[in-house]
Amino acid sequence: MRYLLTFSYDGSAFFGYQKQKSKRTVQFEIETVLSKLFNQKVLISASGRTDAKVHANNQKAHFDVNKAFDCLKIKDSLNKMLPEDIYIKSISKVDISFHARYSVLKKEYLYKINVGEYNPFERNYVYQLNKKLDIEKMRLAIKDFIGENDYKSFSKSDYEEKDTIREIYKADIICEGSIITIDFIGNGFLRYMVRNMVGYLIQVGEGAKDCDVSLVLSYKDRTKAGITAPPEGLYLNEVFYN
Amino acid sequence: MRYLLTFSYDGSAFFGYQKQKSKRTVQFEIETVLSKLFNQKVLISASGRTDAKVHANNQKAHFDVNKAFDCLKIKDSLNKMLPEDIYIKSISKVDISFHARYSVLKKEYLYKINVGEYNPFERNYVYQLNKKLDIEKMRLAIKDFIGENDYKSFSKSDYEEKDTIREIYKADIICEGSIITIDFIGNGFLRYMVRNMVGYLIQVGEGAKDCDVSLVLSYKDRTKAGITAPPEGLYLNEVFYN
Repeated sequence: MRYLLTFSYDGSAFFGYQKQKSKRTVQFEIETVLSKLFNQKVLISASGRTDAKVHANNQKAHFDVNKAFDCLKIKDSLNKMLPEDIYIKSISKVDISFHARYSVLKKEYLYKINVGEYNPFERNYVYQLNKKLDIEKMRLAIKDFIGENDYKSFSKSDYEEKDTIREIYKADIICEGSIITIDFIGNGFLRYMVRNMVGYLIQVGEGAKDCDVSLVLSYKDRTKAGITAPPEGLYLNEVFYN
Repeated sequence: MRYLLTFSYDGSAFFGYQKQKSKRTVQFEIETVLSKLFNQKVLISASGRTDAKVHANNQKAHFDVNKAFDCLKIKDSLNKMLPEDIYIKSISKVDISFHARYSVLKKEYLYKINVGEYNPFERNYVYQLNKKLDIEKMRLAIKDFIGENDYKSFSKSDYEEKDTIREIYKADIICEGSIITIDFIGNGFLRYMVRNMVGYLIQVGEGAKDCDVSLVLSYKDRTKAGITAPPEGLYLNEVFYN
């Protein structure tokens, strides 16, 4: 029987989502607790990885166990046993044909930037840029990210993935007080792609880069884009399935 | 010459404000950096201490140095040298007769409670009660805290202070989504007093304690009140001077 977990985590103290030898990861913590609880080795498959210090509001992962159980009870037991920087929001039974990664239709990422005064309470949760940005220029630039594009210029520099074409459905900038939130929905994102798009947008807002993102996309060359925004502002916000 | 610092700190990783041998404290961090910067031993006097894990949005402290300086420049230097969980918001020159503790007119404390679902991002910043409270009953109870009262019932149990009379000018409950903020302004607060008042109010909201706070005050007996709310929800929000 297959079950789907929806969970949030504060990525600050993790070396990312994915298991790595002798490093603290979200996947390892959840698999350890599930295995204890079911008294059998349980592996989880997530919608995708997140990098060190990156957060998730609604990450999804499935796992298989050979017995039925009460989802609410197991949710409570999991939360009691898990460290306090991971929280299981829900568990539901899914069809065996469902796959948390391969069944993904869309994903949403948020990136938060403080353009006001430094705030020690936000230092792990909002990128502390602490200077004004030209939002109008950034809004002009961000439009070009929407649509089906080759995002090679915004991928990880040593990225080996052959297919660098993705489709972005939504790319928005929301301002609330001194916090700017950049919101992307797409059918998939290359490694570092959101942080590289945000890095470029920050440089546009600073006047260091041109608004013409289409041109940068057309180069298909990482060196033609800009900086990589730091991980602490990034949230995997939602994963959409059929 | 006397200078006044206004600063915020994330109390999560501190054993409180006040210096203690071989423990990480806010006072020690600031004094160390000031002493380095001025190349002389600098001591600071704050408006009062805060306990371990308690936060401050606007703590105040004064210090004396024997030379004039550019406040903005020193502010920037301090922030570069200080750890990232302390932030100096401003420095201003004050009269030598001013004292950050003895000149206090009023202080404001905020206490934040999450009555909704557990949120891993807030775990060090908002008390995760994660259950509904009867706000109407709490509003009824909180009124009795206003005025000049003997707060012995709400002080630290082994508290040795003789004068336990204080005046509270404002005691309010603000609800925003699943966050309840309790706001107190008074001419001074005994040790643990805010957390003990909040603890009692939480128990009123849970139906475990009676709304009649006046009666509890009249006992002048710590055992007649309720629990102590945990430190992570508490913020020294503002210190008022003439």
